[in-house]
Amino acid sequence: MSNLIPPQTLKGFRDSLPVQEIKRRDLMARLEDAFRSFGYEPIDTPALEYEEILLGKGGGETEKQVYRFEDHGGRRVALRYDLTVPFARFTAQHREQLPLPFKRYHMAKVWRGENPQKGRYREFYQCDFDIVGAESPDSDAEILQLMAHSLKLAGAPVRIHLSHRKILPSLLKGLGFEGDPVEVLRLVDKKDKIEQTEFEAGLSRLLPVAGVSQVLNLLDPAASWDEALGRLESLGTESAPIRQRLQDILARLDLAGILDQVYPDFSITRGLDYYTGVVFESFLQDLSGLGSVCSGGRYDDLAQLYTKERLPGVGASVGLDRLLAGLEELGQTSGNSACASVMVFAAEDGQSLDSWRTAQELRRRGHRVDVFTEAKKPAAQYQYAEKKRIPWVVIPKADGSFLVKHLPTGRAQTLANIEATSALLAGMPS
Amino acid sequence: MSNLIPPQTLKGFRDSLPVQEIKRRDLMARLEDAFRSFGYEPIDTPALEYEEILLGKGGGETEKQVYRFEDHGGRRVALRYDLTVPFARFTAQHREQLPLPFKRYHMAKVWRGENPQKGRYREFYQCDFDIVGAESPDSDAEILQLMAHSLKLAGAPVRIHLSHRKILPSLLKGLGFEGDPVEVLRLVDKKDKIEQTEFEAGLSRLLPVAGVSQVLNLLDPAASWDEALGRLESLGTESAPIRQRLQDILARLDLAGILDQVYPDFSITRGLDYYTGVVFESFLQDLSGLGSVCSGGRYDDLAQLYTKERLPGVGASVGLDRLLAGLEELGQTSGNSACASVMVFAAEDGQSLDSWRTAQELRRRGHRVDVFTEAKKPAAQYQYAEKKRIPWVVIPKADGSFLVKHLPTGRAQTLANIEATSALLAGMPS
Repeated sequence: MSNLIPPQTLKGFRDSLPVQEIKRRDLMARLEDAFRSFGYEPIDTPALEYEEILLGKGGGETEKQVYRFEDHGGRRVALRYDLTVPFARFTAQHREQLPLPFKRYHMAKVWRGENPQKGRYREFYQCDFDIVGAESPDSDAEILQLMAHSLKLAGAPVRIHLSHRKILPSLLKGLGFEGDPVEVLRLVDKKDKIEQTEFEAGLSRLLPVAGVSQVLNLLDPAASWDEALGRLESLGTESAPIRQRLQDILARLDLAGILDQVYPDFSITRGLDYYTGVVFESFLQDLSGLGSVCSGGRYDDLAQLYTKERLPGVGASVGLDRLLAGLEELGQTSGNSACASVMVFAAEDGQSLDSWRTAQELRRRGHRVDVFTEAKKPAAQYQYAEKKRIPWVVIPKADGSFLVKHLPTGRAQTLANIEATSALLAGMPS
Repeated sequence: MSNLIPPQTLKGFRDSLPVQEIKRRDLMARLEDAFRSFGYEPIDTPALEYEEILLGKGGGETEKQVYRFEDHGGRRVALRYDLTVPFARFTAQHREQLPLPFKRYHMAKVWRGENPQKGRYREFYQCDFDIVGAESPDSDAEILQLMAHSLKLAGAPVRIHLSHRKILPSLLKGLGFEGDPVEVLRLVDKKDKIEQTEFEAGLSRLLPVAGVSQVLNLLDPAASWDEALGRLESLGTESAPIRQRLQDILARLDLAGILDQVYPDFSITRGLDYYTGVVFESFLQDLSGLGSVCSGGRYDDLAQLYTKERLPGVGASVGLDRLLAGLEELGQTSGNSACASVMVFAAEDGQSLDSWRTAQELRRRGHRVDVFTEAKKPAAQYQYAEKKRIPWVVIPKADGSFLVKHLPTGRAQTLANIEATSALLAGMPS
């Protein structure tokens, strides 16, 4: 009888036990409420799609990581590896039914067969929100405001670093640079991962000396938006529309009361061929070392692989796992929200209906009640309440009274009847 | 430039657009709150598992439907086709960390490559709740109560049909039947799908004449629990423990105030080799023709493929898609819950900050506001509000006043300032 199958998950995959799952679901619910309050509506798409749909945009690295196979009908299919490509396909397919601009959010699992590292898994959640069919500065500002607002509601106030994807190309054009600006962008993208000397040497290979110092000056953190916009002005007429765009956005963020959370940072590049306008990252105010917890930018055309209709937009993506880790470190996750707050003990002999009756009477009075269903010793029942983080325990006694214990403090009290028991549970903080 | 990829989903798969997705998420949230209030906690498991884990229990039909393939590391993997097998593996794997009895719910997608029919898809949600490590009548009664309670909170009061998997085998044993009771059970399982004459002919092939009439009598709907339990009594001592078990459960359902929703129905078989105790189905009180929306039963040993520890339990599964269809037919789904209730119009020239400012001022006063971000004609903006089912529209005027329209009724009013506008929006039902 020992031919048991070893119970295990695949490498890079993991179960979510209740303590973790409750925290994750509650975080998602808080973000979701923020998105909806701004008119962003949820969508969902299949986990499995035609390989051609998902890989049409994929580069070499992505392609290697995608789970793909042949289905029962001989179709080449793949598991989605992000929420952007399915959203592009979705928008092209349902365009006629969607309001434009279309504001949506999507929270769902994606799969990538990359080598698992600390904090990186082969199955993980993404949480994206976008507005497409939108070109105005209002739409840029709205995504930034919603980042600040949703993360604040999630218990994680952020500072946002803002840039514009065309600043560097505009500087390079002014310098008479004739190569592909992407080469310089790629180098800037790696800036934080390499030594400063290596970075400068790389720039020197691509640019004349004067150009190197101008790039370095531009990437240097500016003390204020005035200073940052001043640097853009010095780049000449090329940069005038960018400067105007940023000013329009900043005026809106000021009205939204979050301008003091938004900082210029022209070293942000992100998505080398995808983004075409503003780009941004955000960091927990109390834990900036964690890295960006929400980032995104403006793109010119979401669904060009699937439709001729141009769909410009702007969006952001929350790094849910990283955010959850950060909230845990800050003690900002909910412990046990909205599960049972009272546990009713069962009689040791398992014969009595008292526990069951007590549970019903407390439920009728509005309490959230977990009743122990098996005949077990009190020690096992206390352990049950502790494992489930239930603060209150009610033990029905033979004489009709109730012993009520508050586990976090150890306080115990005997109450004569169910009314008094209910009043105690209702009145005291748990 | 016409080499566009046609935007389409795979056969048997579908997107969820906002109207539908909001209804589904809200239904799930209501069920989830009910589960949690009884102490049932959420878990999650990977979509992808070792093929050996998922198919250890699979029969021929299941095996054919499962999406499976070889991953990048040469492992045989499969997409889960239900939530029961992953739960069994989960319980065996994390046994030491789990409270016992373990009360959990799991709402997640599963995949089956079966031929799509009306209302059946290759990707769909399951919603299971179980208590394992539990043998008491309390645990049986609790699952039944939670079915009634959660579906009522979801807007769908049900009547529950209850039976016990051992009634028919016990009758057959009393009749001296020497074959495998599963043959008779399999026939009873098909009862509603075949003609009554065909059913009786099938019974006659398996049983003597007297046996046929006893089986038919047992399966006949009983007018009351007294009558149903009386029939069990007439089966003799074999059935005494079953009768006692049902009586214990009924006493608990009576205390829970839902006995009048629970009916005897000994024609229910369900899961031919899985269930070993009570089995049940439930039907919408106002739409019984829809079929069972939640069903389940008691099993002897959840995780026997993965651990030697015996884990008896009882659980139920909500047919989410069917339930949602039923709620729609009954007009019981939420239209647009908790999305924006006010839309602020943009100026046609797109130059003014008035719309943006108005949105902020309304948000600061607690309203859920969707602001139109693009310079479009009023007709397009009205259409936007209608597509998003937003009841209120606020149009900032050049003189600082606001035109407020309630779209469902067509009522319009001009308010002098933002305070009056906010008061109107707050005070009137939407």
